[in-house]
Amino acid sequence: MEFTAKQIADFLGGHIEGDENIKVNRVSKIEEATGGSLTFLANPSYTSYVYNTDASIILVNKDFKAERPVKNTLIRVDNAYNALAKLLEFYNKSKPEKKGISSMAYVSASAKVGKNSYIGEFSYLGDNVEIGSGVKIYPQSFIGDNVKIGNNTIIYAGVKIYENSLIGKDCTLHSGAVIGSDGFGFAVQTDSNYKKIAQIGNVVIEDSVEIGSNTTIDRATIGSTVIRKGVKLDNLIQIGHNVIIDENTVMAGQVGIAGSTKVGKSCMFGGQVGISGHLTIGDNVKIAAKSGVGSNIKSGEIIMGSPAFNANIFKKSYVHFRNFEKLVKKIDQLENELKNLKDNK
Amino acid sequence: MEFTAKQIADFLGGHIEGDENIKVNRVSKIEEATGGSLTFLANPSYTSYVYNTDASIILVNKDFKAERPVKNTLIRVDNAYNALAKLLEFYNKSKPEKKGISSMAYVSASAKVGKNSYIGEFSYLGDNVEIGSGVKIYPQSFIGDNVKIGNNTIIYAGVKIYENSLIGKDCTLHSGAVIGSDGFGFAVQTDSNYKKIAQIGNVVIEDSVEIGSNTTIDRATIGSTVIRKGVKLDNLIQIGHNVIIDENTVMAGQVGIAGSTKVGKSCMFGGQVGISGHLTIGDNVKIAAKSGVGSNIKSGEIIMGSPAFNANIFKKSYVHFRNFEKLVKKIDQLENELKNLKDNK
Amino acid sequence: MEFTAKQIADFLGGHIEGDENIKVNRVSKIEEATGGSLTFLANPSYTSYVYNTDASIILVNKDFKAERPVKNTLIRVDNAYNALAKLLEFYNKSKPEKKGISSMAYVSASAKVGKNSYIGEFSYLGDNVEIGSGVKIYPQSFIGDNVKIGNNTIIYAGVKIYENSLIGKDCTLHSGAVIGSDGFGFAVQTDSNYKKIAQIGNVVIEDSVEIGSNTTIDRATIGSTVIRKGVKLDNLIQIGHNVIIDENTVMAGQVGIAGSTKVGKSCMFGGQVGISGHLTIGDNVKIAAKSGVGSNIKSGEIIMGSPAFNANIFKKSYVHFRNFEKLVKKIDQLENELKNLKDNK
Repeated sequence: MEFTAKQIADFLGGHIEGDENIKVNRVSKIEEATGGSLTFLANPSYTSYVYNTDASIILVNKDFKAERPVKNTLIRVDNAYNALAKLLEFYNKSKPEKKGISSMAYVSASAKVGKNSYIGEFSYLGDNVEIGSGVKIYPQSFIGDNVKIGNNTIIYAGVKIYENSLIGKDCTLHSGAVIGSDGFGFAVQTDSNYKKIAQIGNVVIEDSVEIGSNTTIDRATIGSTVIRKGVKLDNLIQIGHNVIIDENTVMAGQVGIAGSTKVGKSCMFGGQVGISGHLTIGDNVKIAAKSGVGSNIKSGEIIMGSPAFNANIFKKSYVHFRNFEKLVKKIDQLENELKNLKDNK
Repeated sequence: MEFTAKQIADFLGGHIEGDENIKVNRVSKIEEATGGSLTFLANPSYTSYVYNTDASIILVNKDFKAERPVKNTLIRVDNAYNALAKLLEFYNKSKPEKKGISSMAYVSASAKVGKNSYIGEFSYLGDNVEIGSGVKIYPQSFIGDNVKIGNNTIIYAGVKIYENSLIGKDCTLHSGAVIGSDGFGFAVQTDSNYKKIAQIGNVVIEDSVEIGSNTTIDRATIGSTVIRKGVKLDNLIQIGHNVIIDENTVMAGQVGIAGSTKVGKSCMFGGQVGISGHLTIGDNVKIAAKSGVGSNIKSGEIIMGSPAFNANIFKKSYVHFRNFEKLVKKIDQLENELKNLKDNK
Repeated sequence: MEFTAKQIADFLGGHIEGDENIKVNRVSKIEEATGGSLTFLANPSYTSYVYNTDASIILVNKDFKAERPVKNTLIRVDNAYNALAKLLEFYNKSKPEKKGISSMAYVSASAKVGKNSYIGEFSYLGDNVEIGSGVKIYPQSFIGDNVKIGNNTIIYAGVKIYENSLIGKDCTLHSGAVIGSDGFGFAVQTDSNYKKIAQIGNVVIEDSVEIGSNTTIDRATIGSTVIRKGVKLDNLIQIGHNVIIDENTVMAGQVGIAGSTKVGKSCMFGGQVGISGHLTIGDNVKIAAKSGVGSNIKSGEIIMGSPAFNANIFKKSYVHFRNFEKLVKKIDQLENELKNLKDNK
């Protein structure tokens, strides 16, 4: 697909400086852009690239002031980053859409599929499954008995959704995600064997949730494991049974949340964070990457470390940890001086 | 499915107080139960819910003494939690069973499948595969050449088992688990390239093992990676080549065990624990979540930290770490006082 | 398959001491070898096994001097470990090869498949896919639209490759690996919702790369996430969007690299290492298992800890951390002594 500067400026409501007929066929980062690329300047630290890039068109903020001549065509917009996001979304939506129910899929006679949905090859839809309209289920996905999936949700290739799970609308589940596998519940027996506790609950995923590739969410023992509206989970995350994650909380890759923990709204967890079971994490909690959380955390806290505590205090402690050798030498010296003082007394 | 209080009391050997004809159709947690639910009181800290819940039936320990009138029907049993587990298991087993070999599966002409087994759509059984009786292989699973699977084992959707792996009876493998992928073995070459060491061993999983979703277990370079009887592995765990995990050891999510390490019996590892390669971990070792283990550990030890050591000592050290800023101020003050003392001498 | 000592010695260019007609049918570790096994002595600490093993043939270095009589047949070679690796590779290649395009696969009319390639059952090849010659794609893999895969690459069962990804030649991708899922990019909105940033870039994997099972590599927002020639990634690793990993870098299991970070050549990362986004890691950097990296790292550094710093300094600090209780007692004692000194002055 090719677009002219004029078409793009019209779409974005922007103002052209340069050749309105110049054409681009791709979007590139400013440090990599070549002729035929559209690029953008959102971060001021990349400004120097503006004077050297071969990009055909550069999106800039409307108040951008060039300090040297710019040979490229500029499109001035209110906010270059937002304009870029809008363009990327448009570009993405212009791709050919997958449609129809493949004859190489398995769809139970009792399953219902809404209008304009796509069921790819080798996907399996179990008994009593209900799929909304505009849903895309890519190849090789497993949708267990009684699962319901809301309108316009995208299930990429190879997602596995166990029976009775409920998935909202406008969700995206990436390849290899597993929804509804058994919670990890065993009762130790007198002979030190473990007996499995049957896991009869389910998983409920509300609207506008994104689940990364190979992320796993266990079903509840009884009741539901719940991922509320707008939650975004990155790849390879583990969510234990009966966990509840409240609205708009975001977790980076490889986070693990043990069973029955409740996480509040609008939290942000860095990568590889781990949280023990049966805890309550408040709203707007920020947890630094790699932290381990072993106690309840109040709303608004920013924590770090393993076990995690106040991030500012952690950072101060860690500076001293890095200089521990010097500190110990200092203490040894104090000890010696004190000894001398006593001896000479 | 609906059951009366009488049917449930008979099944559990319990004693009814209230309406023996009242019906329930689901199990709920006591804080969420509504009319038509069966619930339970196992943890005394939830006792207050007994007087307010709308649950139709409450399982209680036989020695439970109500301090106020209870409107609901009670069933008194020896141990409410065990009775619940028994009910959940019964409930789980009463679900309709998947059966038969799908015509949409691929079964090699040389593969053998035992009686009453289920082979789901789009599953693949390679050459010389031997499947026991009562085995369930859900859709989209891959069973490589020469793999053997014992009676009554459940393989959920999308499990991948590489050739020559041996799986015992009464095991459960959850979706996305990968058994028998190549061990991570490379020999560095003079030009700083790596040359792959062929991995010709296999994986042996004994009876009554549970493997969580998206957990990966690598084949041995030579010999076998072995998961012994009764081991329970949670989701997203990595087990390296030639590792041996002894009976009834339990590991929480996202644990990683590097190649050739031997883990003893009845160990318990918290989430995100990592263990280096070529180590020996004794029996009954407990490792706190997020610990990193870099040395051999004796039987019965409880360890924590990264690198991990005695958990009690770790906790004491960590308290001081949290107060490091104060400690350093104290040392500075001592230094000043000492200086003053010397100067004034 | 059975081989005589003579056949093996001829293949390896080795020298036989003992029965040149003795036959073996498997390779075993020296501590586990039984009659009919070929084994090897590469690590001197295993020498004592030479005098007791029932292995039929032992590979030894040519300068090996037996201190006691050895009943087994020896084959002396220049380097026993390299000879073993050569044998394992030969053994591996002698397995029957999978061939042909299964009639139970889906291959788009516009996809091209090279000579001598294998496309297994229930695999999906999208529009405009180009597969080289000698490529093996095991069952249940997903190859999205416009994906290109170079000659002799092996894609094991259940790998998912999103559209537009480019995979080099001689690569190995293990089961459950996900290539090209969306980068984790969201813009926070005024109502605290997040809006997804469309991810229109791709993943480029160069030649001779190995990707472990259930490892995930996200596509770039714009441009490419790049894994250069010879990189080896173990299982359950997370690579964020726009990351670049340079030649011959090796990462152990469960490592996570956040978005836009650049990793140099010939680095070695231990298991469960995490690296924040937008960082630059130099060449030949070694990072100890479980470390968390939050800043740029210069070439050749060896680092440890979370946040990670110089490994030698970390180790010294950690020794003091382990003895923190004693140190605090010593400080308290100094304080007391100082107080006494002042009081008695």
